[in-house]
Amino acid sequence: MSASLTKDEIHATITAMGEKARQAAYGLAALSADQKNDILRAMARELREQTETIVAANAHDLAHAKEKGLSSAMMDRLRLDTTRIEAIASGIDQVAHLHDPCGEILTETLRPNGMLIRQVRVPIGVIGIIYESRPNVTSDAAVLCLKSGNATILRGGSEAIHSNRAIADALQKGGEDAGLPAHAIQLVPFTDRESVVALAQMDRYLDLIIPRGGKGLIETVVSLARMPVIKHYDGICHTFIDQAADPAMAIRIAINAKTQKPGVCNAMETLLIHEAISPTLLPVLAAAFGEKNVELRGCNKARAIVPSLIPASEEDWSTEYLDFILSIKVVSSLEEAIKHINQFGSHHSDCIVTSDEKAAEHFLSHIDSACVFHNVSTRLADGEEFGFGAEIGISTDKIHARGPMALRELTTYQYRITGEGVIK
Amino acid sequence: MSASLTKDEIHATITAMGEKARQAAYGLAALSADQKNDILRAMARELREQTETIVAANAHDLAHAKEKGLSSAMMDRLRLDTTRIEAIASGIDQVAHLHDPCGEILTETLRPNGMLIRQVRVPIGVIGIIYESRPNVTSDAAVLCLKSGNATILRGGSEAIHSNRAIADALQKGGEDAGLPAHAIQLVPFTDRESVVALAQMDRYLDLIIPRGGKGLIETVVSLARMPVIKHYDGICHTFIDQAADPAMAIRIAINAKTQKPGVCNAMETLLIHEAISPTLLPVLAAAFGEKNVELRGCNKARAIVPSLIPASEEDWSTEYLDFILSIKVVSSLEEAIKHINQFGSHHSDCIVTSDEKAAEHFLSHIDSACVFHNVSTRLADGEEFGFGAEIGISTDKIHARGPMALRELTTYQYRITGEGVIK
Repeated sequence: MSASLTKDEIHATITAMGEKARQAAYGLAALSADQKNDILRAMARELREQTETIVAANAHDLAHAKEKGLSSAMMDRLRLDTTRIEAIASGIDQVAHLHDPCGEILTETLRPNGMLIRQVRVPIGVIGIIYESRPNVTSDAAVLCLKSGNATILRGGSEAIHSNRAIADALQKGGEDAGLPAHAIQLVPFTDRESVVALAQMDRYLDLIIPRGGKGLIETVVSLARMPVIKHYDGICHTFIDQAADPAMAIRIAINAKTQKPGVCNAMETLLIHEAISPTLLPVLAAAFGEKNVELRGCNKARAIVPSLIPASEEDWSTEYLDFILSIKVVSSLEEAIKHINQFGSHHSDCIVTSDEKAAEHFLSHIDSACVFHNVSTRLADGEEFGFGAEIGISTDKIHARGPMALRELTTYQYRITGEGVIK
Repeated sequence: MSASLTKDEIHATITAMGEKARQAAYGLAALSADQKNDILRAMARELREQTETIVAANAHDLAHAKEKGLSSAMMDRLRLDTTRIEAIASGIDQVAHLHDPCGEILTETLRPNGMLIRQVRVPIGVIGIIYESRPNVTSDAAVLCLKSGNATILRGGSEAIHSNRAIADALQKGGEDAGLPAHAIQLVPFTDRESVVALAQMDRYLDLIIPRGGKGLIETVVSLARMPVIKHYDGICHTFIDQAADPAMAIRIAINAKTQKPGVCNAMETLLIHEAISPTLLPVLAAAFGEKNVELRGCNKARAIVPSLIPASEEDWSTEYLDFILSIKVVSSLEEAIKHINQFGSHHSDCIVTSDEKAAEHFLSHIDSACVFHNVSTRLADGEEFGFGAEIGISTDKIHARGPMALRELTTYQYRITGEGVIK
């Protein structure tokens, strides 16, 4: 794509995009919720109208992917058809219905000297999104950023470049007809690694980077970025079945957390079970997981109860299987469970099943994770389930956004202070 | 100090400190506000008791500074005496009186499936503070982090290493007598650049870095850090005198913003004045600044009105003088003022003086700065003035904390979700 471009040319192009994005952001910040919603609906309309163009662009990407020998799973992630484009468009219409958080007054304080201090929610400014194969991210991410008043610079993967360009063009063009500032949504026209370097160093214009994709991509962004990065690497989620757990509920939650959709970040990877309840419950659980064809790997104590378990190695405790595999560890106390989760987990989502309110309270306040659940499956760690409408991702970081990240997390605040000549 | 240590040894030492800090953070998160306040008071007591030891350690640093030929201003920043140590100790007692933000419920939502989702304010975890000469930062920063439930790893400058060590030892020892977890406050024992590299790369254990000091230090941290950095580089603050300004108020605010303490980040560096009011107001303003011995540098339009102004160069608009120097620009509209501030400012604090409410509202909502003031001097951009009690710094970043950063900004949140066997 950009084999003929030098490093300097890539940096210059991206810097120019940054400058334009900053100007667009000032325009976006001044739009009302109604104006933004009109723009979103116009974008959805244009996307629908451009269906043929987008499918044609996608065919280009698919042909190239086939030549490169991409797996059928990867090909499926890349594929767009009328149904999928309609789904993207109706996703935009839904975002138009969400509450706009901008302008909310978070705190208001009148000081003795007469200063009235209002902390007002405002857009962040310019957000960089770096992602891999799925072309729907182009729309999903740009649209959430736009609804919260931010300009975006999108940098997708090389496999989806034609699809991404067609989608981004439709969004920007459709939006402009309804008053979207120029350059509010920009797609980086090349996909070399150098374009990631250029974005990551452009702290003058990019206020935040959100990488979405594999660990390698995220690691690259983290090591290069001069601005904040919000991300999650892994979802090593735990369910701890306490001695005071209701057995039927424990089985229901454990089976759901592991098997309902094992390939996602909020699925359970390790089951911890209290030794007092293991002798009776573990055999039943093992049978239930067996019916779902889940491979079970257990610690020595677990294998003493269910000898058919595969021996778990030390690496199992820190492995995200994303598959029908589960590691099981018998623990002698609530404290041991907490220690294990804080040490081996990824601080994403962890659950305790218990009828003991005190144990639950202790667990919830001692686990250092974004979401901690009591008698609720970790699969519920999700922006839609939390009622946020849509999420741009899940953060296992602690700064600014933690857990499901939605419109509110795409904003910041500003102090607006008024007075009558206050100088002290 | 650590000339004999290899790079690997420095990294190993700092990693070990990180592990211990993480454990301390778990202990700290479980403390009640009362327990933390007892610890703080015990720290203040111990600091007072160790006054002689601290003064002796400081004498070491001062002697070394003298040998190295430090300026008298630098020597003064470094110096500790009984009065200054008492001020540090009483600062700690004051922090014990502040409200503890941890445990606050930020939002609470009951979902249709019975999930109760509570968003609870919790400590961030482990915070790294990298700072330069002033030894009081050792206490001020550690104590605010502790009150908000965080462990700290402090890395001060080489000039103050003996003073910093004596203060950190007193805080940790005094605190431990009252229940402070071991290693809650740790000082990095060496001051090479490699120790900054090691801290900045340790994203496993450090959740946040706050650099306090000169631009060079902050730039180094930003370029190295794998975790979020909250900071501010500059304070290029503006006052815009609108055509509808009350002249007496405009003069009072402008004189205060420039001259009350010119060496701080919230002092004014550039005055913008509407061309409609310039012919009458600028001569009076120039005279008032002249009385305060402020050097005035003006644009051509300003010099046409007051010919004695020094011609301002393009660099003046982006210079933080921190001195009795002011650049003055005549603008033809509110929009031009806004554009100038967003382009040349440092997004710290900016003010409009006007009696026109509409103009004020437009200014406040279009300036992209942490604090925007209407008829209030930018000198009021300060945690104490905002009623936060004490601040750890001012952020010109947009992520997590913007503007004065106090206890609340040293916390994050966690979702705690309860239900009765919810799996969908």
